[in-house]
Amino acid sequence: MLRVGINGFGTIGKRVADAVRAQPDMRVAGVAKRSPNYEAEVALDRGYALYSAADDGATPFEDAGLPVEGGVHDLVVESDIVVDATPSGVGAQNKGIYEAHDTPAIFQGGEDADVAEVSFNARANYDDAIGADFVRVVSCNTTGLSRLLAPLKENYGVENVRVTLVRRGGDPSDTGRGPINDTLPDPIAIPSHHGPDVQTVFPDVRITTMGLKVPSTLMHTHSLNVTLESEPDVDEVRDLFADESRLFLLPERLGIDGAGKLKEYTSDAGRPRGDVWENCIWDESLTMDGADLYLFQAIHQEADVVPENVDAVRAIADAATKEESVERTNEALGVGSGLTDHAVDHADPISDAASDD
Amino acid sequence: MLRVGINGFGTIGKRVADAVRAQPDMRVAGVAKRSPNYEAEVALDRGYALYSAADDGATPFEDAGLPVEGGVHDLVVESDIVVDATPSGVGAQNKGIYEAHDTPAIFQGGEDADVAEVSFNARANYDDAIGADFVRVVSCNTTGLSRLLAPLKENYGVENVRVTLVRRGGDPSDTGRGPINDTLPDPIAIPSHHGPDVQTVFPDVRITTMGLKVPSTLMHTHSLNVTLESEPDVDEVRDLFADESRLFLLPERLGIDGAGKLKEYTSDAGRPRGDVWENCIWDESLTMDGADLYLFQAIHQEADVVPENVDAVRAIADAATKEESVERTNEALGVGSGLTDHAVDHADPISDAASDD
Repeated sequence: MLRVGINGFGTIGKRVADAVRAQPDMRVAGVAKRSPNYEAEVALDRGYALYSAADDGATPFEDAGLPVEGGVHDLVVESDIVVDATPSGVGAQNKGIYEAHDTPAIFQGGEDADVAEVSFNARANYDDAIGADFVRVVSCNTTGLSRLLAPLKENYGVENVRVTLVRRGGDPSDTGRGPINDTLPDPIAIPSHHGPDVQTVFPDVRITTMGLKVPSTLMHTHSLNVTLESEPDVDEVRDLFADESRLFLLPERLGIDGAGKLKEYTSDAGRPRGDVWENCIWDESLTMDGADLYLFQAIHQEADVVPENVDAVRAIADAATKEESVERTNEALGVGSGLTDHAVDHADPISDAASDD
Repeated sequence: MLRVGINGFGTIGKRVADAVRAQPDMRVAGVAKRSPNYEAEVALDRGYALYSAADDGATPFEDAGLPVEGGVHDLVVESDIVVDATPSGVGAQNKGIYEAHDTPAIFQGGEDADVAEVSFNARANYDDAIGADFVRVVSCNTTGLSRLLAPLKENYGVENVRVTLVRRGGDPSDTGRGPINDTLPDPIAIPSHHGPDVQTVFPDVRITTMGLKVPSTLMHTHSLNVTLESEPDVDEVRDLFADESRLFLLPERLGIDGAGKLKEYTSDAGRPRGDVWENCIWDESLTMDGADLYLFQAIHQEADVVPENVDAVRAIADAATKEESVERTNEALGVGSGLTDHAVDHADPISDAASDD
């Protein structure tokens, strides 16, 4: 049973903790937080051992009457592997702590690529992370692009990729972010960082990404063109995607026109937090024009990296092959559930708590 | 002095009326409206002769105490040319009225292309409209794309065009439209109608357009890739665009990150309604990658077709060459004013009313 510590219990950390808890071969060693806010209450409600990452130690938590087990060093001691889900840039600062304890760690995509030996996407390069000390799970957008490009690259070859990322302005809880009533090229300069980030996974792929921010919070939407090295029929591409466990082709009959109905659907299906772990590709948008593939896909920025973090834990521990890990993660979380014609029952990662945490 | 009747006095009609009034060689014969709402008050305040387009004639206007000169037929009799700025689909229904009076008419881009002999953009095909009976000024997005593609086509050749149109959900006054907090592929199927519409202006251009709607009202934003037939340096392309009177390269130093600041700028400059008649291309976004040009541009959906309607009037009347008309329209409206390093004075299309209307 792998003991996984979670440093940072915000948007990603709390989801990774619940996902780890749902796995048959892992347990949550504890979670570290900086402030005793509502998410600290959630951690304690879930039964996670709470550690303080505050500069002044346990004080803010004690003042709030919340019990903590110690500091980040104490959490690392209790962990076989740490998932660092702290804000962008903080992960790199934490690296020395993990090195001091000789404990492998997983960073998030907000860190620079050189924080780790491997920029990781389970579908694309699981094996590169086997036995690594430091792995970086690429960002939500890069994860979404990597999952899509891997099968295209393997089957048809990829000559050029052009993506416009229509990005949500902030997460639903980011009350201080914008824009309001505007569409902002962001960055104005081209390419955005996403293209070079995809190249940390696929160094030889030619890709240009253009980012914009809009006044929505639910998901990113990608407008995507891939010039392939061959000219498959659109139905071949459809079948190829249908075989991928973390790509979901949204059938027209569902009547899902955007992120709102999509999250309504996954919430109705009983998924924790309504999370959408899969790339959601609008089936109707799939278009081939010569060697040019066009499509729209929605990416849930809070959720799609969660199963990737779980797989990264197994890769580092060399605890499963790629296929075993992906299948185990999917099964335990319910990836694909509520997104198929006949939804099947899966473990509930919240209520079916593992007995040992 | 060309007598121009305006049928429809909404977003486009009221702007075209003011733009016609500002021209030295035209006057507003009158404007027709369906309902006695706030825009009818604006028409009367401007001194425009008001005609009723209501099904029950002058009654709704008389009930509201607003004086009308007659119906649409009466307006057509008073006009040498009519600009039909009624809602999409209504223009085609009105065509019989113009035919009955043997009066040439200009339709808007919401009508099907076959409503007219020519789908018009002044920069691209002014001469095709000379002496025509029916001309269709293409939509705001198609206008923005045509202005950009014309010089590229002439100078470098265009092999393929790929555009993602991040469309405002509705105009600021469209209080019943959405989306709220969502990004909707619209249409989900690819291409959107914009690509085929561009082909009504450039039949031989290969183009794929993908549309999305977002919760903003101020402008459309285009994420654009043009594969050229040659490989100019990016500074050559910059110089080419700088020579175009209806393309404005937004310099980085202005600090304009989106449509909000852009409209603030044109409003500060004293433009009527803060209108942005030009394509606004972010200079910083101009990028060449081999033969691939990438850029972002903002398109003010309420305004960019306004100078095109004015030019279409002169083309139909064979009253000026393309160069003369474009220069006269620009000068009278102030196209380029407030968008250059040293703004120059131009006629104010609102307060400098022509003496004869």
